[in-house]
Amino acid sequence: MHTGGIIVIGNEILSGKTRDENSPYLAGELRNLGVDVRKISVIPDDLDLISNEVRQFSKAYDYVFTTCGVGPTHDDLTMDGIAMAFGRKTHRHPELESTLRQYYSQNLVDGNLRMADIPGGARLIGGTGRWFPTIAVENVYIFPGVPEILRRKFERIKEMFRDAPFHLREIYLQADEGQIADLLHRVLAEFPELLLGSYPYFDNPVYSIKLTLESKDAAYVEEAHAMLLAELRKIDLIPIEL
Amino acid sequence: MHTGGIIVIGNEILSGKTRDENSPYLAGELRNLGVDVRKISVIPDDLDLISNEVRQFSKAYDYVFTTCGVGPTHDDLTMDGIAMAFGRKTHRHPELESTLRQYYSQNLVDGNLRMADIPGGARLIGGTGRWFPTIAVENVYIFPGVPEILRRKFERIKEMFRDAPFHLREIYLQADEGQIADLLHRVLAEFPELLLGSYPYFDNPVYSIKLTLESKDAAYVEEAHAMLLAELRKIDLIPIEL
Repeated sequence: MHTGGIIVIGNEILSGKTRDENSPYLAGELRNLGVDVRKISVIPDDLDLISNEVRQFSKAYDYVFTTCGVGPTHDDLTMDGIAMAFGRKTHRHPELESTLRQYYSQNLVDGNLRMADIPGGARLIGGTGRWFPTIAVENVYIFPGVPEILRRKFERIKEMFRDAPFHLREIYLQADEGQIADLLHRVLAEFPELLLGSYPYFDNPVYSIKLTLESKDAAYVEEAHAMLLAELRKIDLIPIEL
Repeated sequence: MHTGGIIVIGNEILSGKTRDENSPYLAGELRNLGVDVRKISVIPDDLDLISNEVRQFSKAYDYVFTTCGVGPTHDDLTMDGIAMAFGRKTHRHPELESTLRQYYSQNLVDGNLRMADIPGGARLIGGTGRWFPTIAVENVYIFPGVPEILRRKFERIKEMFRDAPFHLREIYLQADEGQIADLLHRVLAEFPELLLGSYPYFDNPVYSIKLTLESKDAAYVEEAHAMLLAELRKIDLIPIEL
């Protein structure tokens, strides 16, 4: 199983001005691809903080995804921070420079070319053109903050992350979590590798608990699901069909 | 200036099943209160990971806020993780136990009482009753994951975090960020303490850049704002009135 980590770089998220649309999107997509996302961090536009976080994530997880901070202005420090994390420098990449020169044509100003400055040894993946490719350094994949562009870029390369899928079963109940705490422990004692979640809902008229059972082993999920249903029957709890 | 950190504990966020509504809410509220949120982490329901993250955040920031993981089931490990972070144990709190006994009355099962198990030396703040108080250990404030309940609890205690406010000015432009990168550097050279953000928009018909100028010193923001407008005029860029 491959693991992933997501780093969101941006004061605008931390100050509540902008809502982070990217980490929920990436988390959902990566889960569907079979990748186990282990951590999401939101950090400020600060060179040392970016560098430290990237270094830690890169060691801890198989894949690291960063979003935001890749434009031409003073607060776009992602490329410098990632270069620093790996003890490298940024340099102007000729292919990106020529793409930018073509795009801006006679309107080009020096500032635009900053977007061609990427860490040494970076790879360009997923095709060419104005918004593509995606830039990767070691196991770190660098995405912009604009959600539409991030999605377009991720769609282009996502198959490279595909892994064995997670199998999911859900059970909805009208009950109090306290009633089922013990039986969930019994199921986990039998199925220690099961990913079992129990989520209360306080304003849903139909159900008050959602249980999720997951594993990469489909048969394991089915056996655990059967045991859980049997345990629920013992205390007269019938799952709600949605 | 006081700093803050937010820790979201929950596999359901990392797997993309549930969207985290709480950290955007807390980040926005804390900013309005004048608190500088420096980091948001989303981590799994894992005792060691919770304990480590809480210990690090507690040292690094003035206030730490946790959400999720405070129910009665096996995946509710927040209280144990926070106790562990401070080298304490959880114990059954008599006041919380009696609130729970009253609430559940004859429907009470043992599982319900797990919600009265809190770290030794924890403080109960913000009043009494079923959903209140908020439990705090050292500088860590513990909130549930259900957004409505979190909000009600936070509203009750938020004034204790109030600090000098941030002053904010915004400028909207129809331009390319590359055009203004240099003049933003000049403004920052004059106003090094300014919190200056530049955010591109690719699908807004009215403006393509939002600039944000912030400081706790209102006069400083106004002076920086005046200089920035003068710099924009030099390259014939007129802010857009919204």
